[in-house]
Amino acid sequence: MPKFGPPSSQGPASGLIIREQAPPNLEFPFRDLDSRITPTGSFYVRSHFPTPALTAATYGLTVGGEVARPLRLSLDDLRSLPARTVTATMECAGNGRVFLSPRRRGVAWELGAVGTAEWTGVPLSQVLERAGLLETAREVVLEGADRGHLTDPVETPGEITYARSVPLDKALGDVLLAYGMNGEPLTPDHGFPLRAVVPGWYGMASVKWLTSVTVSARAFRGFFQTVDYAYWETRDGLPPQLTPIGPLQVKAAIARPAPHEEVACGVTYEVRGAAWAGEADVTRVEVSVDGGTTWEDAEFLDPPVRHVWRRWHHLWRVPERAARVTLLARATDAEGRTQPEAHDPARGGYLITHPLPVCVNVLERSP
Amino acid sequence: MPKFGPPSSQGPASGLIIREQAPPNLEFPFRDLDSRITPTGSFYVRSHFPTPALTAATYGLTVGGEVARPLRLSLDDLRSLPARTVTATMECAGNGRVFLSPRRRGVAWELGAVGTAEWTGVPLSQVLERAGLLETAREVVLEGADRGHLTDPVETPGEITYARSVPLDKALGDVLLAYGMNGEPLTPDHGFPLRAVVPGWYGMASVKWLTSVTVSARAFRGFFQTVDYAYWETRDGLPPQLTPIGPLQVKAAIARPAPHEEVACGVTYEVRGAAWAGEADVTRVEVSVDGGTTWEDAEFLDPPVRHVWRRWHHLWRVPERAARVTLLARATDAEGRTQPEAHDPARGGYLITHPLPVCVNVLERSP
Repeated sequence: MPKFGPPSSQGPASGLIIREQAPPNLEFPFRDLDSRITPTGSFYVRSHFPTPALTAATYGLTVGGEVARPLRLSLDDLRSLPARTVTATMECAGNGRVFLSPRRRGVAWELGAVGTAEWTGVPLSQVLERAGLLETAREVVLEGADRGHLTDPVETPGEITYARSVPLDKALGDVLLAYGMNGEPLTPDHGFPLRAVVPGWYGMASVKWLTSVTVSARAFRGFFQTVDYAYWETRDGLPPQLTPIGPLQVKAAIARPAPHEEVACGVTYEVRGAAWAGEADVTRVEVSVDGGTTWEDAEFLDPPVRHVWRRWHHLWRVPERAARVTLLARATDAEGRTQPEAHDPARGGYLITHPLPVCVNVLERSP
Repeated sequence: MPKFGPPSSQGPASGLIIREQAPPNLEFPFRDLDSRITPTGSFYVRSHFPTPALTAATYGLTVGGEVARPLRLSLDDLRSLPARTVTATMECAGNGRVFLSPRRRGVAWELGAVGTAEWTGVPLSQVLERAGLLETAREVVLEGADRGHLTDPVETPGEITYARSVPLDKALGDVLLAYGMNGEPLTPDHGFPLRAVVPGWYGMASVKWLTSVTVSARAFRGFFQTVDYAYWETRDGLPPQLTPIGPLQVKAAIARPAPHEEVACGVTYEVRGAAWAGEADVTRVEVSVDGGTTWEDAEFLDPPVRHVWRRWHHLWRVPERAARVTLLARATDAEGRTQPEAHDPARGGYLITHPLPVCVNVLERSP
């Protein structure tokens, strides 16, 4: 069993696409999708502030708020608790944003702000049980050591830390305080020495460099769940309300062919991709090779595992003549939810789950 | 008693300062402060969207949500209920914004986005009692007929209406559904035929052109209490949270001298102004004529009346020689709250309640 000692020296693989140099925002080239588990060096990085320099020796996690016994846990304390390893797919809530027109504010992700890893750590529920939840507990606020001053689209009140909340039932369910990723300690960019992993939720909930867990009696309204990572939801006959983004929406993505790939006419091409959902399994993926007019079922390459994507493929008989072809994929989950036909503007630059067009050039055989 | 029939034809007085032509955002020239009640034609106008053209004959107020008996009330229905007349001061939450440096987004109000009127109408509590509140009731969402599509600082989800919520205890307390202002029907720009008046709160709560009252089981997070009309509050050891603006903060404002007024040296000048607070009475006003080094008590011209400003004055012995003088005023309420020395950046472009400097030129007597 790995020791989870100093941070993994494994830096990002050279193949990652730089979307922002500082802070590091790096994308997995989705056409490289191969294994079900994404190697750590190929796993996308989403950071809001510079990577904080934390050390295992001085690190501490404070647990407070609506609890009977506030705690401070060292990394050794956390490592000495019974560990659990969980495989979970994580996707940035803005993945696919380059496909939106007009352009939206935010990091210009294509398809690869998504990945799957094996996470090792302590269930948050264990830590909360040790602290003793009070009856007033309603949400759990997760706060990182990363901090800074933002001005777009509105100014933050000076320097703020990155923080997000999860409802109490989710916090007591399957949220993990992870110190390991794919059998190694976390890398600095992935949150060394400790991060939250909120399976089935968009990545913004999985707070990196986690230093504070605060149980709250009220719904938390921090910057990253109001100004950022929120969308407009219309319900109860009321005007649209700003709502924090939470669970993953069902989605399929095509890895190969890649956008603008050149494909030889007349061949049989193995279209490949992955599909994922929130709290339910993906049960169906369909592929269209005519821009959405007709659809055929794809075949899964992986069995269903809760919170983990399933790779799929589909054999495509490429046309005999030169053409521009638009491929699409769409997924459906076990509860019958499928992808919307178009992006809902109320979602802003988030939750981009309509089938994204992969336009390829079918080329004549060379004579 | 006035009939409260068609809208008052009284348009804005020619003396109002235009801050925005369309939609109309008009400011009372605060140096003209004279009577305790602001004449309707001098009362500031704050609009987010074009003034909707509503008629008394077709107007209806819907009451729904967490109620036993959803209602639709015509203007005649509302007028036939027992009426109440309430005097209340109303101030825009961004009043004084021109004094901020750096400049903040929003209408560039000086001192006069404030006024006091006699409002006549039906207590909201009466209407809610007729509808029958359910036990789940927590907030009351007030929605106007004014609507539009905003893009700054973030885009609204298409066209939205103006809406704000008040907590249930305030809604059942003293919120008025007003059809009369200073003994006449509302003017179109002030919300004809019906507006909310939320005494002791900033003006954004007093929704104009009120067409819908929805009782909600949850805290409402509409555009005008998240993106707009909210500030960053730090509490409970958590990162700053976006908090809807509510009650008025204690504040004194100087009407005369006006900024940059020329004052003759050696005379006794009657400094005048008004002071107001939220749910408590203003009990003290101090004036400084040396930029805040020393302060003297001003004298009230009005007795305390809940939710109504008090005019005050102070006799100033103007220096014998030419000078630049900065005057300041600050108020304290019955609960000992006073004004902060400087603007807190966490309030953004709102709640500008530090003493605002009135710089005047003291001129030598002409020879």
